[in-house]
Amino acid sequence: MRIPLDRHSGVPVYQQVARWLRQDIESGALPARTRLPATRALAEQLGISRITVVNAYAELEDRGLVVASEGSGTYVSERAVRPDHAGRAVEPSWPVWQRELGAGRPTTGPDPLLPGTLAFTGAGDPRLYPVAALSRTIREVLRSDGPAALEYGRLATGHEPLRETIVEVLASQGLRTSAAQVLVTTGSQQALALACQVLLRPGDAVVVEEPTYNLALDLFRARGQRVVTVPVDAAGMRVELLEPVLQTHHPKLVYTIPNFQNPSGASMSGPRRARLLALADRYNVPIVEDDYVGDLRYEGRSPPAVKALDSAGQVIYLGTFSKLLMPGLRVGYLVADGPVYDRLAEHKRVQDLSTAPLMQRVLDRYVTVGRYQAHLRRTVRHYRRRRDVLMAALADQLPEVSAPTPKGGLFAWVTLPDGLSSQVLRAHAREEAVDFAPGGWFFPEPAAGDRFLRLNFCTLTPDEIVEGVRRLRVALDRCSGG
Amino acid sequence: MRIPLDRHSGVPVYQQVARWLRQDIESGALPARTRLPATRALAEQLGISRITVVNAYAELEDRGLVVASEGSGTYVSERAVRPDHAGRAVEPSWPVWQRELGAGRPTTGPDPLLPGTLAFTGAGDPRLYPVAALSRTIREVLRSDGPAALEYGRLATGHEPLRETIVEVLASQGLRTSAAQVLVTTGSQQALALACQVLLRPGDAVVVEEPTYNLALDLFRARGQRVVTVPVDAAGMRVELLEPVLQTHHPKLVYTIPNFQNPSGASMSGPRRARLLALADRYNVPIVEDDYVGDLRYEGRSPPAVKALDSAGQVIYLGTFSKLLMPGLRVGYLVADGPVYDRLAEHKRVQDLSTAPLMQRVLDRYVTVGRYQAHLRRTVRHYRRRRDVLMAALADQLPEVSAPTPKGGLFAWVTLPDGLSSQVLRAHAREEAVDFAPGGWFFPEPAAGDRFLRLNFCTLTPDEIVEGVRRLRVALDRCSGG
Repeated sequence: MRIPLDRHSGVPVYQQVARWLRQDIESGALPARTRLPATRALAEQLGISRITVVNAYAELEDRGLVVASEGSGTYVSERAVRPDHAGRAVEPSWPVWQRELGAGRPTTGPDPLLPGTLAFTGAGDPRLYPVAALSRTIREVLRSDGPAALEYGRLATGHEPLRETIVEVLASQGLRTSAAQVLVTTGSQQALALACQVLLRPGDAVVVEEPTYNLALDLFRARGQRVVTVPVDAAGMRVELLEPVLQTHHPKLVYTIPNFQNPSGASMSGPRRARLLALADRYNVPIVEDDYVGDLRYEGRSPPAVKALDSAGQVIYLGTFSKLLMPGLRVGYLVADGPVYDRLAEHKRVQDLSTAPLMQRVLDRYVTVGRYQAHLRRTVRHYRRRRDVLMAALADQLPEVSAPTPKGGLFAWVTLPDGLSSQVLRAHAREEAVDFAPGGWFFPEPAAGDRFLRLNFCTLTPDEIVEGVRRLRVALDRCSGG
Repeated sequence: MRIPLDRHSGVPVYQQVARWLRQDIESGALPARTRLPATRALAEQLGISRITVVNAYAELEDRGLVVASEGSGTYVSERAVRPDHAGRAVEPSWPVWQRELGAGRPTTGPDPLLPGTLAFTGAGDPRLYPVAALSRTIREVLRSDGPAALEYGRLATGHEPLRETIVEVLASQGLRTSAAQVLVTTGSQQALALACQVLLRPGDAVVVEEPTYNLALDLFRARGQRVVTVPVDAAGMRVELLEPVLQTHHPKLVYTIPNFQNPSGASMSGPRRARLLALADRYNVPIVEDDYVGDLRYEGRSPPAVKALDSAGQVIYLGTFSKLLMPGLRVGYLVADGPVYDRLAEHKRVQDLSTAPLMQRVLDRYVTVGRYQAHLRRTVRHYRRRRDVLMAALADQLPEVSAPTPKGGLFAWVTLPDGLSSQVLRAHAREEAVDFAPGGWFFPEPAAGDRFLRLNFCTLTPDEIVEGVRRLRVALDRCSGG
């Protein structure tokens, strides 16, 4: 039995083995009453430990696909293969309420990569995370705060000193608020999810930029929202196209990423920000402003946040420490004024009581405005260099693509020449051990994005970037039949 | 100006000051154009730092209630007091969409307590948390896993080794499952919230036990579910009353806490568990089984989990490390089979991407079945003693109340004599520096629970319990006019 395995994928090996066997069983390739190989023999054959095979068989047994017979081995069960009229295998009969749910996205984790793959994906370079400083800070917090750091947070809205710190960091970026308007969340993704819970019912329309952040699209999709789009150009959302959308679709939310938009890298101009706010006011629709990486700027200055222009309580502002410091803290926040703040806070409380109190205390102790600014400067220096290396390598190696130089953020947004598909390119690229995010991820209709791809230039070192672009060149040549 | 302040409350002092002044301004006690006391003078008067007063004034200014005039002080603004026709102050004019949200629960945090209050509340005794061991484990994980522990988790479903560990812990409690059916969540509260998101639309009915866990009620309320109840007796949910409820209300979810129910302490009998499952099957309704503290048992043996009887995929099982180890980790999990698992995992992913990866790795390294069992034995020894001390003190000091002895868990459920209100008792109790959870919290209609109160006997030491009950005696006498 030959089973292709990938130790570097996120999928545990036993699951890879189980999935392979399951497909064979359900397709009938392994008919009922077939004896599976002995665990020891299969383990040797695949070069894996016997316990891995045992676990794979146990999973098949849990699913009712095989039967372990004491002493005599493991057999494909009678129940496993029940072809329907079309000859397909039938799932065990789940309760009606389960069958009515429809299929979810399978929980497979990221696709497996070849060893040594250079991935222009991710959120930043883990090699720049302040791991040692963080470790020290955790020790300090546990020593000084003791068990208090491990109790439930007293306030679902967040550890009070951290909220004050966030106010200071935002003030240093030109956004004035108060701790009473800050809600600490489990990453900014939760902040967006809370806004949806408070503002949207299933079927309500949401305006997004096109392209936009894929996990926002996934969230809206999972909740059953109608998604309507306004295109992005070099100056961000084309706000002049928003008004007819508001008139036609009566959306209950406008979701925007004004700074270094994910994935396009474009920043919204100051006049458009003001116009967006005026339209939201006229059409009575809340704005969620996702400032996921607003201060990671390599040149020029940002216009004020839309929230900074908002005196009426029209904007819910989302921020995070994930991109600049490290994603694994899972600490983000939102800023909101008016009655919606209390509603957001109540939904936060009933969602998960509070964001991990230890991580909040650690972040509060670690982040001072001075230290934050110093870390920002260092990160900007590294990432600006990487951006420049990428743009030069693209110009040199891939002259047929177009890619505007982003003024900040993490991403370059690349347009392929006519007739080329980023999905097809990606298949070749992964065989050349280089990966990226295909444009389709960022469009409600993935086909509309197939000419684009997003390159994260912050995760790889300059040398890796050069080598990655070289591999992209090879993949592109293979696409074109070169 | 005299403002009552409580430094030990969860509410920051500057907010207490701001709230007090705000009430005075909105009620008209401080009319427009009144000059507030100078910050330095008020700080001296209240015995607090000047910056606290400055922050309080800044918050009032952010709300448009006062105006700071450079050099000449802070004044109540014209805009602040705009009585409506009934003479009540009117809020600043928020956008229409905000006004239509209705009032949220105000985000005030827990009520302030007198210094030295003995609180029969909380989740367990922080003094028993393994803080030192945890601190050591964090250090080990950061040293061995490095930045990987601070990236996004590769799998939204959870760190794979931790899921395997959870499978082993559950197996040791008689529940067989596989890692592929385990979803790690930010506490079991998030697991319940995910089940709601997947299974319920606004207005759908949910069956709960009466009384039941207050934060489940809060969640259902925030989501706009209809809540219908089935009463609890000494053998748990009175399942014989469930069938007519299912026929009448067509609920989309049955929420049950079979072991040491919160708040009643009752455990569901084995036959009732089987009957519950059969009814759920007949009426096609999913069960959420919240086993928040299932293995914290002081005597006897638990019947198998409802999930352990479930071969059809009818039950979503919730567990947590919050109660036994420490709540601040914010790591819980659910177990589900069938298509609903993928849906739950997808909602988890779009809610917060993943539960803090560092905390997952730390928990995985800390928890082995052996260490978990040892910690469990130690905790059971402590908590059993405390339960016995509480029951003896109640029998001795408060002979007029009735309180069955719980066989496990954290809570004793006390019934007051006729005519006494736990709300009224609590007001007196808090003046005697003792606190508890009034029964009304655990009923959809709080008035129905006013004869009851819940005492957590795990948070306080035996001596504190004895003294706490003595104070309850005094409060009870004051209630009865004694």
